[in-house]
Amino acid sequence: MASFSFRRAGPDDLAALVALLADDPIGRERESAGTPLDPCYAEAFSAIDRDPNQLLAVADRDGRVIGVLQLSFIPGLTRRGMWRGQIEGVRVAAGARRDGIGRAMLEWAIEECRKRGCGMVQLTSDKRRTAAHGFYEALGFRATHEGYKLAL
Amino acid sequence: MASFSFRRAGPDDLAALVALLADDPIGRERESAGTPLDPCYAEAFSAIDRDPNQLLAVADRDGRVIGVLQLSFIPGLTRRGMWRGQIEGVRVAAGARRDGIGRAMLEWAIEECRKRGCGMVQLTSDKRRTAAHGFYEALGFRATHEGYKLAL
Repeated sequence: MASFSFRRAGPDDLAALVALLADDPIGRERESAGTPLDPCYAEAFSAIDRDPNQLLAVADRDGRVIGVLQLSFIPGLTRRGMWRGQIEGVRVAAGARRDGIGRAMLEWAIEECRKRGCGMVQLTSDKRRTAAHGFYEALGFRATHEGYKLAL
Repeated sequence: MASFSFRRAGPDDLAALVALLADDPIGRERESAGTPLDPCYAEAFSAIDRDPNQLLAVADRDGRVIGVLQLSFIPGLTRRGMWRGQIEGVRVAAGARRDGIGRAMLEWAIEECRKRGCGMVQLTSDKRRTAAHGFYEALGFRATHEGYKLAL
């Protein structure tokens, strides 16, 4: 396994991040990965970056972005005021998918949630992404909930 | 149906909110509803209240809290930088459950998400809460995702 590190995403990563999100059978239809980059992404990056409860993280190998995920730290009243860490938008570059990077990214993210005092980590996974389900279960996640979505 | 209104929760609502969260077969085991109130709740309330992307909302009937839900507005890169509205901790007081308050609360929450520019509203529902599932589906939600949780 080649070495890689995790770090907070910066504005210079944005084009690579959008390319990564679009390089996926489900993501392809949802993103606008053309050049120049659609300004909606710079706006979104800025909203994430200025919110102290959001952390957009990249896996970096030799200066190349090979993975991304977003962590949201959510305060709540339930369960005695428990904070939740929520993971969204997990993607690993096609050429890096057999290198254990996905697993290492998730383990890193879970540890970040622990450091922030979260009592739970949660994520939803499209029921069509059957290969991902075994991956999350191997990390200790349990599909105890239905994930409901309503498009506006 | 008696009239009720929705408003942002204030610190004076806290004891009523915790009682509401604990008055539920699943919530009962998870909350500390004794008097004086466990300070963990005041701390959690303050974390929610100072985060501009969180909205703890109550349904109020004649000055009495009969329902609660938490809305989180989450910026993201995916789907062309779409904001998500997330609903958590939905509870309606036992004596008010047949008055359409749950439905009205959810419709109000969906409208708040629309006003904030969200492209999607999402929530997870414990697979044991089978009665809730028909309720969310009637509001237009679809259980397209598995909801994974990992306790820390």
